[in-house]
Amino acid sequence: MTINLKNFLSDKSKLSKMGEFQDLKPLDGLEVSSISADLYKNGRDDLALFYFKEGANYATLTTTNSIVSETISWNDKTNKKVVKALLVNTKNANTFTGKQGYDGIESVAKHLAKTLTLRESKSESGISETIRTKDLIFASTGVIGESFPAEKINLRLDELVEKLRDDQNKLIWIKVASAIMTTDTKPKLAYEEFTFNNKIIRIAAVAKGSGMIAPNLATMLSFIFTDADIPSNLLKILLKKAVANSFNAITVDSDQSTNDMVSIFSTRKIKIGHNRGVTDPVIQKFETSLKNVCLNLAKQIVVDGEGAKKFLTVRVVNAKSLTCAKRIAFSVANSPLVKTAVAGEDPNWGRVVMGIGKSTEKIDKDKISIKFGDFTVAENGSESPDCDKEKLLEYMKWDSILIEINLNQGSDIFECYTCDFTHDYIDINADYNNST
Amino acid sequence: MTINLKNFLSDKSKLSKMGEFQDLKPLDGLEVSSISADLYKNGRDDLALFYFKEGANYATLTTTNSIVSETISWNDKTNKKVVKALLVNTKNANTFTGKQGYDGIESVAKHLAKTLTLRESKSESGISETIRTKDLIFASTGVIGESFPAEKINLRLDELVEKLRDDQNKLIWIKVASAIMTTDTKPKLAYEEFTFNNKIIRIAAVAKGSGMIAPNLATMLSFIFTDADIPSNLLKILLKKAVANSFNAITVDSDQSTNDMVSIFSTRKIKIGHNRGVTDPVIQKFETSLKNVCLNLAKQIVVDGEGAKKFLTVRVVNAKSLTCAKRIAFSVANSPLVKTAVAGEDPNWGRVVMGIGKSTEKIDKDKISIKFGDFTVAENGSESPDCDKEKLLEYMKWDSILIEINLNQGSDIFECYTCDFTHDYIDINADYNNST
Repeated sequence: MTINLKNFLSDKSKLSKMGEFQDLKPLDGLEVSSISADLYKNGRDDLALFYFKEGANYATLTTTNSIVSETISWNDKTNKKVVKALLVNTKNANTFTGKQGYDGIESVAKHLAKTLTLRESKSESGISETIRTKDLIFASTGVIGESFPAEKINLRLDELVEKLRDDQNKLIWIKVASAIMTTDTKPKLAYEEFTFNNKIIRIAAVAKGSGMIAPNLATMLSFIFTDADIPSNLLKILLKKAVANSFNAITVDSDQSTNDMVSIFSTRKIKIGHNRGVTDPVIQKFETSLKNVCLNLAKQIVVDGEGAKKFLTVRVVNAKSLTCAKRIAFSVANSPLVKTAVAGEDPNWGRVVMGIGKSTEKIDKDKISIKFGDFTVAENGSESPDCDKEKLLEYMKWDSILIEINLNQGSDIFECYTCDFTHDYIDINADYNNST
Repeated sequence: MTINLKNFLSDKSKLSKMGEFQDLKPLDGLEVSSISADLYKNGRDDLALFYFKEGANYATLTTTNSIVSETISWNDKTNKKVVKALLVNTKNANTFTGKQGYDGIESVAKHLAKTLTLRESKSESGISETIRTKDLIFASTGVIGESFPAEKINLRLDELVEKLRDDQNKLIWIKVASAIMTTDTKPKLAYEEFTFNNKIIRIAAVAKGSGMIAPNLATMLSFIFTDADIPSNLLKILLKKAVANSFNAITVDSDQSTNDMVSIFSTRKIKIGHNRGVTDPVIQKFETSLKNVCLNLAKQIVVDGEGAKKFLTVRVVNAKSLTCAKRIAFSVANSPLVKTAVAGEDPNWGRVVMGIGKSTEKIDKDKISIKFGDFTVAENGSESPDCDKEKLLEYMKWDSILIEINLNQGSDIFECYTCDFTHDYIDINADYNNST
């Protein structure tokens, strides 16, 4: 991966240069730890625990794939609004594992609940609370169809709980973000803060890659934490809005995981007052920060897409509806021919035309104009006569390419993000037999 | 391309070994010719003319891409049921060419009508008929967005018409099939015949590749000719049925051309009697032969898919509806991850599970079983315990792979065909700048 983040991440992202992580702060009310259960048989961390001593408000969005992980089925059964802990395992997706997988997650839940309850009973606060399995949620990512390694996980839970700490500095955040990776090449973190009534409200988040990647079918996971006391129902509304233009606006290879999950947790430590709605100024500030966090992570996921050499933004403007703009943007961004053209630094706008039409959205082709960066390559239904082809070819060498499609039919806009399609993608995805 | 056709084409295809073409016979009432207008600047044939002296019944199916070639718009305007000639050009798609493209096709039509009328007036039959532009149809395939080369084409029409001949032997069929190719590596032909009332009814057909391929955006074209006197309305019904399980059951890269077109022409020379419907025995015989021709050509197109090393059949059985079976089959066949796994000879059925779910069709995962060839890899919602993995890995080395998904939910079946996704696909599609 040679993409320079500077080229496309906004200043707001606070990433000054490639490989430099934001300085994440601790979240009051959150404790984290990570450990290796040796699921990968190479000693790397593969379990991450997020613990909310006093509970957390909670909202989640999961995959629309009609086959889902046993883990997601387990979470769905209780429809929780307040949770005590989240346990994430990698290497195993717990999908297509049948009863073994479901029983496995139940066994882990029982063990974890017991271990956390025991810890509570020993705590200095003197408040001893029984943690129930229904207070816990889970996320799994990894290979589909392999038996869920419940026993190996259970063996490490005592130490995982022992290691919980509330002073998350940047290094601890990086360690936890690394523990949820599968074939990602680097951990993904984002952070925003803003001031309200002289109190600092924080949003810290981690994510892992979305490319459906061998040897694992990698899942897109993201966990977002805040100390702002926002009720679960409102968290859900805000999360949906933020995800629509970030995690749901990226595509690596059009494939979708059985395990995708984005969750937000509020430790409720910073009181902002009751009955605040979506139009309330503090909620709007929160929404903006949440969107920045999500978009930052989503872009990091694309940049880390399998074999990606270039970041590609497909922007559809002046569409007659948002649905139309979305369908066309994704139709172009998911086209293997557009993605290989970008890899070959070829401003092949004919393929963009094909991608627009493939959406089967009704458009007026004589009104369409297409730009690569600042270069108008087609307008009014035919090739643009004024395009400086030499400069355009220079532009195609950039790390980050923008394709803008102006439909001139309305006022709706949608922008999605993807990467190019290179030899490395084929290498990584074809060589499963040789890499396990 | 190293796929051995023997492995997957049925005996009926009459292809005895790779590279050997069927022995196509002449069609009474049809004359053909091909020539170079030097559109490729290398002297290869790029114009093909099919002429029906006494007219032909006609039915056509075209792309569902919402942006279509000016050529298709031109054909659509007259909604013809009887035609006199079909002219096919390659190199230029006449798409996104605006008024220039439409005027261009009109100019070619006028010129061709005049030239054919002149020929008629000189013919020995003494019957002199005026051929009108609305008696002509066109097909174009090639680069999108380049000006339509009407003048270059017009310059060659006289000689193209002069060269028309009605004694099409195998070599002439191959020459014509080669003239409609873009980046196909070989011409595609198919032939079937059957006897009715001691008369031989013939179906001969040519096709070109479907992969959306650089440097051209290659289009799927197929032209089917018969001497059986079947009315246009019935031809349309039969064509739709045949295409559903052949040309519409293949996918190379999920991209769809702006120019796709499958047409059938009847020279009406063999009389089969009036008022025969779809259930009539002779029509059913015809339908079977037509389906064989279409499936044969469709498989040839897949085998010639860009960079393809393996032929992949995805069969969905016991679905609750045909729509469900189709969606799941294509969802799996279009998944870059499934296609790269097949390229890597990796029986990664987890990716098949992901592909099934990605269709968002409602299925019962605990009922699904998945086979690679004869090997059951998953059943009842989890990994099959009895799979001989060593033999399975041997099977994955074959040229032709079958993935069968049994949903155990109903009785509907759909089978689709695709190829694997290899390095060569990326090479061919990324290197446009270097290959023009």
